[in-house]
Amino acid sequence: MPLDQFYIIESTLREGEQFVGAHFSTEDKIRIARALDEFGVEYIELTNPSASPKSFEDCRAIARLGLRCKVLTHIRCHLEDAKRALETGVDGIDVVIGVSSYLRRFSHGMSVEEIIDRAAEVLTFIREQAPHIELRFSTEDTFRSDPADLLRVYLAVDRLGVVNRLGIADTVGIATPSQVAWLVGTLRRLTRADIEFHGHNDTGCAIANAFAALEAGATHIDTTVLGIGERNGITPLGGFIARMYTIHRDLVRRKYNLKKLRELEQMVAEMVGVEIPFNNYITGLAAFTHKAGIHAKAILNNPETYEALDPQDFGMTRYISIAHRLTGWNAVK
Amino acid sequence: MPLDQFYIIESTLREGEQFVGAHFSTEDKIRIARALDEFGVEYIELTNPSASPKSFEDCRAIARLGLRCKVLTHIRCHLEDAKRALETGVDGIDVVIGVSSYLRRFSHGMSVEEIIDRAAEVLTFIREQAPHIELRFSTEDTFRSDPADLLRVYLAVDRLGVVNRLGIADTVGIATPSQVAWLVGTLRRLTRADIEFHGHNDTGCAIANAFAALEAGATHIDTTVLGIGERNGITPLGGFIARMYTIHRDLVRRKYNLKKLRELEQMVAEMVGVEIPFNNYITGLAAFTHKAGIHAKAILNNPETYEALDPQDFGMTRYISIAHRLTGWNAVK
Ligand SMILES: O=C(O)CCC(=O)C(=O)O
Ligand SMILES: O=C(O)CCC(=O)C(=O)O
Ligand SMILES: [Cu+2]
Ligand SMILES: [Cu+2]
Repeated sequence: MPLDQFYIIESTLREGEQFVGAHFSTEDKIRIARALDEFGVEYIELTNPSASPKSFEDCRAIARLGLRCKVLTHIRCHLEDAKRALETGVDGIDVVIGVSSYLRRFSHGMSVEEIIDRAAEVLTFIREQAPHIELRFSTEDTFRSDPADLLRVYLAVDRLGVVNRLGIADTVGIATPSQVAWLVGTLRRLTRADIEFHGHNDTGCAIANAFAALEAGATHIDTTVLGIGERNGITPLGGFIARMYTIHRDLVRRKYNLKKLRELEQMVAEMVGVEIPFNNYITGLAAFTHKAGIHAKAILNNPETYEALDPQDFGMTRYISIAHRLTGWNAVK
Repeated sequence: MPLDQFYIIESTLREGEQFVGAHFSTEDKIRIARALDEFGVEYIELTNPSASPKSFEDCRAIARLGLRCKVLTHIRCHLEDAKRALETGVDGIDVVIGVSSYLRRFSHGMSVEEIIDRAAEVLTFIREQAPHIELRFSTEDTFRSDPADLLRVYLAVDRLGVVNRLGIADTVGIATPSQVAWLVGTLRRLTRADIEFHGHNDTGCAIANAFAALEAGATHIDTTVLGIGERNGITPLGGFIARMYTIHRDLVRRKYNLKKLRELEQMVAEMVGVEIPFNNYITGLAAFTHKAGIHAKAILNNPETYEALDPQDFGMTRYISIAHRLTGWNAVK
């Protein structure tokens, strides 16, 4: 896989709104949407318009901003949600339903057959109403679902011929890169759709899993600013950018306005009441600091020796700690 | 791979000392060593005794604490470093040298042949002096090194028959899980040694790469508390524990004193002057919070629906945000 065809679905205004500290006003949402658009993400995803009248109004307002990026909304697999979503004028609709036994039992209670019927009903309805809308179908908690159940559902949906994209979701953050690669590779062979990956970070693999998905043929990756979302969140925008930058530096520089990352993160951090973690990708305090002597010496010779990312590309500066005991040891030789 | 044979090499007192905010006193180091031992890590790694007289004294003091875990120190591939290390009474010595063209050019300036000769000299010397010491050899910046150079070096070292373990190091944090898996799998086939992985987190793959290494046959994983280290650090202890917990819950519960994780992290965070990130694995503020309605409803039915980790195992408590607009929508249905 050349890995040069990937799209970011930025979900700060959907998954991010599910972060415990997020209480976005309409103005907040519009500022975030514009900043993401300036940064250059290809899509933004917004909370279900059926969640509340305000969600509906905000979705409609953002769909009308005339952004360069495509505006998506995210709904349950319900006809009523679909109808409300269609009224907002978004460019695309992301439909999700749980297939795992946990969700079938403790959430919606449907059997696999009922899920397939429901999906057919809702997806066909949307396609009839909106022939040009971008339509995605995904299963929640994909990685705790029976693979046979999953494939029955995905193959039935793909066969409908109405969706552009199939999504897989690591809802509880347990997937491993090899599991993601297997599932994406399998869907790639068996269906005609683009593939989207949404991954939570409970066990620290959200970025690597997104990357493994792309390597296996996925096309769309969900992110949020600072990774905010349910629990400790999902693939962070900045970390995903760092990942792709070392793979396709020029492409990433061209596609995204990298110098805007920092202020985007600071804005969102302030809105949701968190500090940028000291170890945050690219923009964290420590991201471009070098300390041990053996490092400082080589860094002074050539920064690339110990740097995979060029701080200047992100408007950041390098910091070499040469006064410390460990540094002195070698930095001055 | 069954993945049930893994050992943590906790490097807060070596890699972590290279974090910009770390200035550990002797007392700090002893407290950290004891806390890591109580937590149950199998090894701790200490800064090179040749770095300063204080490093030497601290290494000696910690080697004498009578900890359950093995005490290692970490040295450059120099005879003088080896001699100093042997005087400290540690249980094992980790030797490292750079093989990448960056490091050969901008750091030590040796050719591959010179590296092999130097490694043979230093490793054989250590083994002669200390027949029972645990001896590891690793290459710095493994993933930007020519694979042929790497294999020449590793195969020559393995052939010496004096090292217990070969290490690979993602020094600048660029490796991907599939690259790690390939290299570990290759070394597994071609050598008899145990394999250690050390990975930086600049592009967010440090935990997933450690896991990919284990899947491919590695045995030892380097971590630090909160991941502190050069730049944004390495595989964090807590995140690695979260990763392994979802794979082998009972084993992880048995091996490690999970309820101690939080105070261990708080202690180190205070010493190095950082806040625990809001999104920290397991112990972060947000790790066990649930908000969106669809989630809160199922969580009330059965917490496992949206939780891969049981907060009680870590002495943490779950928080369900049910007063919010997004929650109310479904939590009360
Ligand atoms: O729609 C999706 O694919 C993902 C929904 C979600 O946030 C999750 O399952 O974690
Ligand atoms: O000794 C090793 O394997 C790792 C040394 C180190 O900290 C690095 O290369 O990042
Ligand atoms: Cu999610
Ligand atoms: Cu390191």
